[in-house]
Amino acid sequence: MEQAVDRRRLSAAQELAQRAGVDALLVTPGPDLTYLTGYRAIALERLTCLVLPATGDPVLVAPGLEVAAASASPLGQLGISIRGWAETDDPYGIVGELSGGAGVVALSDSMAAGAVLRLRDAMPAARQQLAGPILRELRMIKSAAEVEHLRQAGRAIDRVHEQVPELLWPGRTEREVGDDIAEAIIEAGHVTVDFVIVASGPNGASPHHELSDRRLEIGDTVVVDIGGTMPSGYCSDSTRTYAIGYAPDDFLAFYGVLQDAQRLAVESVRPDVTAESVDAVARSMIAEAGYGDRFIHRTGHGIGLETHEDPYIVEGNVELLRQGMVFSVEPGIYVSGQYGARIEDIVVVTETGVDSLNNTTHDLVVVDPAFSS
Amino acid sequence: MEQAVDRRRLSAAQELAQRAGVDALLVTPGPDLTYLTGYRAIALERLTCLVLPATGDPVLVAPGLEVAAASASPLGQLGISIRGWAETDDPYGIVGELSGGAGVVALSDSMAAGAVLRLRDAMPAARQQLAGPILRELRMIKSAAEVEHLRQAGRAIDRVHEQVPELLWPGRTEREVGDDIAEAIIEAGHVTVDFVIVASGPNGASPHHELSDRRLEIGDTVVVDIGGTMPSGYCSDSTRTYAIGYAPDDFLAFYGVLQDAQRLAVESVRPDVTAESVDAVARSMIAEAGYGDRFIHRTGHGIGLETHEDPYIVEGNVELLRQGMVFSVEPGIYVSGQYGARIEDIVVVTETGVDSLNNTTHDLVVVDPAFSS
Repeated sequence: MEQAVDRRRLSAAQELAQRAGVDALLVTPGPDLTYLTGYRAIALERLTCLVLPATGDPVLVAPGLEVAAASASPLGQLGISIRGWAETDDPYGIVGELSGGAGVVALSDSMAAGAVLRLRDAMPAARQQLAGPILRELRMIKSAAEVEHLRQAGRAIDRVHEQVPELLWPGRTEREVGDDIAEAIIEAGHVTVDFVIVASGPNGASPHHELSDRRLEIGDTVVVDIGGTMPSGYCSDSTRTYAIGYAPDDFLAFYGVLQDAQRLAVESVRPDVTAESVDAVARSMIAEAGYGDRFIHRTGHGIGLETHEDPYIVEGNVELLRQGMVFSVEPGIYVSGQYGARIEDIVVVTETGVDSLNNTTHDLVVVDPAFSS
Repeated sequence: MEQAVDRRRLSAAQELAQRAGVDALLVTPGPDLTYLTGYRAIALERLTCLVLPATGDPVLVAPGLEVAAASASPLGQLGISIRGWAETDDPYGIVGELSGGAGVVALSDSMAAGAVLRLRDAMPAARQQLAGPILRELRMIKSAAEVEHLRQAGRAIDRVHEQVPELLWPGRTEREVGDDIAEAIIEAGHVTVDFVIVASGPNGASPHHELSDRRLEIGDTVVVDIGGTMPSGYCSDSTRTYAIGYAPDDFLAFYGVLQDAQRLAVESVRPDVTAESVDAVARSMIAEAGYGDRFIHRTGHGIGLETHEDPYIVEGNVELLRQGMVFSVEPGIYVSGQYGARIEDIVVVTETGVDSLNNTTHDLVVVDPAFSS
C-alpha cells in the first residue's frame, strides 16, 4: 500500500514540475527525498541526489558505500535505478550528465550550500530555483496514513507532557528538567529529540528560550515546548504552561485570555477559510484584552516530515485551508522581564472542521511543590 | 576564557576572508556559526544569518522572536550587534544591505538552498562561493579546550560500547538493540543521538546499513557504529565489532588483519605526515592479506562540531597532519552476503605523535548467549 502511494508521489511531482517549466528536480537527503522515495539517508558530505526529470525515469546518484542501504530502503522497491559513485569520481558532474542539458533545475530547499554551489558550477547552463513551491502542493495535504503517523506522534508527546509535572520542583535547573524530558521523549517512542524548551519565570518571555542553569522557584510559571521525530519520520510538537505552587494573579488574568484565544482559533479551522483568518481569531481576541503587542509571533506552522513546513498560519497568508492540512495553533503572550505563556496543539483539517492531535489539558497545571520536593 | 578565544576566531576568520578576496562571510545556524560565536540556534525556516564583513563589525540578522535567545547565548557577550526582523520584513534584503555592495560573499557550507537562492536573488551583483575553504583552516585545528570536549565525547561513547554486549542476544532484532543503544547514548551524557548502526550477519557487509528487523542469531558477527553530540556541541563516533556465541573461522582470519591494520594506521599518525599516508598504511596491510577490494571506503574523517569534517583520511589528500587535528581511523572489511567488520577510534594529533580518544578493547567481543538469553 505504502509503495503504491509512493509511486504516485513521483509521477505527481513530475507533473507539477512540467507545469512549472522545470526540467528536473534535484533532491538531496532530507524531507523531500523521504517524501518522494521513503529513503531516509543520513545527510553526509558525500553527495546523494535523486535526479527526477520532468519526463523520464528517475535515477538516484549515491556514494558506492551507500548503494546497499539505498537498495534496502523503500526506494529500492520503487524501481528507481541507483548510480553508485567511487571515492575518486565527481558526483556533481554525474548529476549534470543525468540532467542532460536541463535549462531549469529545482533544488530541494534543504540542500546544503556545499551541494548547491558545486551543482551550479557543474551545470553552468542550468538556472537553479527552489523545489519547495512545487513539492509543497503534495507535502502540504496529508494522506490518511500520514495523518495517522502524526496522530501517533501527538499521542507520544502527550504522554511526555503528562509526566512533566513530576519533573518540576523548586531547586532544579531548567537543564536538569530538560535532560529528563529528553529521555522521556525517547521513551515515549520518538527516535530523535528535536527540541526541548523549558522556560521558567522571566525566561518564559523569550518564545525560543532554550535550557539554562536557572533554578525553578515556587511561584514560577514554566513554558514547556517539546517535540521529536517518530520512527515513521513524522514529527511532534506541543506546548503547555505549568506553575510551581501558584501563579501570580496578573499571570492568571492573561492565561485565561490565552486559553480562550487558542480554543476559538482551533474552533475556527475548517476547509475553505484562509490561513490568516485563523491567526486573526487568536490575535484579535488577545488584542481586545489589551495584550496585542505581547503576542509577538505568528499563530502556527505546518508539520509533517519537518517540524516547520507549509502552511504557515500568519497574517498575509491567504491560502485556503484544505482537508488533510496539519498545523500548529499556538498563540502566546510574553511579558518581558516577568513571564510568558503559550498553548500549542497540532490540528488536522477534516472534511467539515478540525480534529486535534494533542489532547492534554489546556488548564494551567499547578504543580504542588510538597509532592515533588 | 572561552569568550576570549571566540573573539579571536572572528578576527582570524576576517583575516582569512581578506586573504581569499571575499568581502563578507554569511553564516546561518550550524557548525560554522557555533564555532564563530557560540550561538547554537535551531535552524528554522526563518532566516538567522551572521554577516561578517572582511573588515568592520559583524551583525547578526535574526527573527525578532529569537533576539532574546541570541543575546542570552555566548554571542551576546561578544559585542556582536543583533538586527531583529519582524514577521513582515524581508530578511534577505536586510542581509544584502548589511553586506553593502559586496562583490564576493562566502556562504557557510551547511546553509540551506532556501537561503542560498533567496540571497542570490537579493544580492544579484554578489558572486557566491563556499566559506568552507576559509573556515576549515580554523576549525580543523582544535584548541586544548576543544580536544578536551572531544575527549569527554569519546569517554561517553566508550561507556555505551561497554554496555553493548549486554544488549546483544539471539532473537532480538537490530531495531530493538538500536533503540536500547539510543537510550544509552543519551544516558551517557549526549544531548542527541546522531546515528546508530547495528549491522548483523550479512548486513555487516553494508558499511552504512541502518536498523532492520533482522533477528540476531548465534554465530552472527555484529558491527556497531554509534555516535551523538555532547552538551558542548562536540561529537562522538566509535565502531566496534561483536560476535554472538562464536564467529566463523574465516571471519576470525580477516578480523586479525583488520585489527593490525587499524593499530598500525593509528601508530603512523604524527605531525607532518600526509593524511593519505595514514590511509595507505591501513590499505596496504589489508591488500597484502588479500582483502584489498573489500576495504571499500576511505580510512577516516575529521570530527568536531560535525561528525564528518576536514581533514579526510583518503587517497589523494596530501594535506600534512598538524597538532590539534582530530579524526577517525576506521578501516573495514566487507564480504558481500556474509559479514563485515570495522574498528573505529577517534584520534588526536599531538606535538610528537597521537593520542586515542576511544579506549575500549579492539579485540572481537564474543558475547556468551547463555548469559544474555
